[in-house]
Amino acid sequence: MCELLAMSANTPTDLCFSFTGLTRRGGDTGPHKDGWGVAFYEGKGVRTFHDVDASANSRLAEVVQTHPIKSEVAICHIRQANVGDICLANTHPFMRELWGRYWVFAHNGQLSEFQPSPGFYEPVGGTDSEALFCDILNHLRHRCDRNDAVEVITEHLVQRSKAFAGQGVFNLLLSNGDWLFTYCTTKMASITRRAPFGPARLKDADVIVDFESETTPGDIVSVIVTEPLTTDEDWDIYQPGEWRLWHKGLVEAKGIAVSEPA
Amino acid sequence: MCELLAMSANTPTDLCFSFTGLTRRGGDTGPHKDGWGVAFYEGKGVRTFHDVDASANSRLAEVVQTHPIKSEVAICHIRQANVGDICLANTHPFMRELWGRYWVFAHNGQLSEFQPSPGFYEPVGGTDSEALFCDILNHLRHRCDRNDAVEVITEHLVQRSKAFAGQGVFNLLLSNGDWLFTYCTTKMASITRRAPFGPARLKDADVIVDFESETTPGDIVSVIVTEPLTTDEDWDIYQPGEWRLWHKGLVEAKGIAVSEPA
Repeated sequence: MCELLAMSANTPTDLCFSFTGLTRRGGDTGPHKDGWGVAFYEGKGVRTFHDVDASANSRLAEVVQTHPIKSEVAICHIRQANVGDICLANTHPFMRELWGRYWVFAHNGQLSEFQPSPGFYEPVGGTDSEALFCDILNHLRHRCDRNDAVEVITEHLVQRSKAFAGQGVFNLLLSNGDWLFTYCTTKMASITRRAPFGPARLKDADVIVDFESETTPGDIVSVIVTEPLTTDEDWDIYQPGEWRLWHKGLVEAKGIAVSEPA
Repeated sequence: MCELLAMSANTPTDLCFSFTGLTRRGGDTGPHKDGWGVAFYEGKGVRTFHDVDASANSRLAEVVQTHPIKSEVAICHIRQANVGDICLANTHPFMRELWGRYWVFAHNGQLSEFQPSPGFYEPVGGTDSEALFCDILNHLRHRCDRNDAVEVITEHLVQRSKAFAGQGVFNLLLSNGDWLFTYCTTKMASITRRAPFGPARLKDADVIVDFESETTPGDIVSVIVTEPLTTDEDWDIYQPGEWRLWHKGLVEAKGIAVSEPA
């Protein structure tokens, strides 16, 4: 399996602290050593980094840890390969353009029986995750309109997620740079940090940060992750089937959508 | 305007030497200080770096200069903005997926009268370059088949390039990771390095490399650039309207396609 990390914030914020914790799990405190990737939105643009090395030992990961890249939405993934070789084309997050925006996707899980329908978007690599992403975008392109409200798009994402969850493990991060959609079948947790900010200690590395010195009073920054990254904060654990739509650091909508046993 | 750099090689090769020379022109020996980007194919995957800082002073560019990333096809661009703000979304190279492969594009020039037809691929940023890229892919998707021979695709690219060249300056780099298509209206030069390899000295930085120590006898590595990067090698200058299709370091086809004055 893999681990996921995302951020939603109301002001451009760097991911160095959380990224440092997560990447230790790629070959050091965890087994997810088959590559990693991260995408940072900057306005409508996206800055991506992908590597097939274990994130705990990757020089490129070290650059991302120590080079603060400020973003309102970021998505990160460390991989433990099951479907698909270890190669750059199979490294999340994946990205495509839809309606003049970049959409970014990362997934944890496996849907071994998934058979994608042919469509405009096609996977480049061999993972079921990328095929799922293409399937979601093909669905949105055919069933939705570029001017649809986010509530309409979200309802389609919830229904697709529910259908996929009936076929296996499907923990999802998806963004168009404005909002961030998250869905959990097995493991996901979030934390929202806002004033008064305090210190936090990473679980996977000997690092403490004092958010008070790195923020301004109006900042709202949420982190969503497979397993909590800090030992001294109170993380909000997702229920199985729970989805949350994040926007500027806050949950804008949420619900539970569990597929019925066949 | 901007400057372009590409590499085509028959074995994975790093771009550190040429990239070091080109990036000096982004705010040091040249005025192209409005961002830079580079894409390296690794198999069917692509590793990209984009930055809005001047390449001569960019920490990320320094990482790419000193962190050898080996690739058979790479495309790089340093920007001097004319159309479109200075922001990440306007930074070349641009990338889209077509027929299950990533296509990468960079452009030098300006086609101020260009009016793109609506199509599947849409620009995310505000440059005419990205709109041109989307127009080319929309054309290929509608007029060609995924199984068409490279000669068929090339003929479409030549005709589209010729049409664009009739509207302004259009120096082009385009790849699907297998071949590299290049077209010149004003400035482009190439060099093919193969055994016996010798030393070369950059024009823009005090750097000499001895390719003999960095290669094996069967290597063939070509570099295509807006203006020659070295002072002691014999660069092959493109004619106006000249196109060359590169594959594994060699020119597989070439010709001249100049649009007639209206």
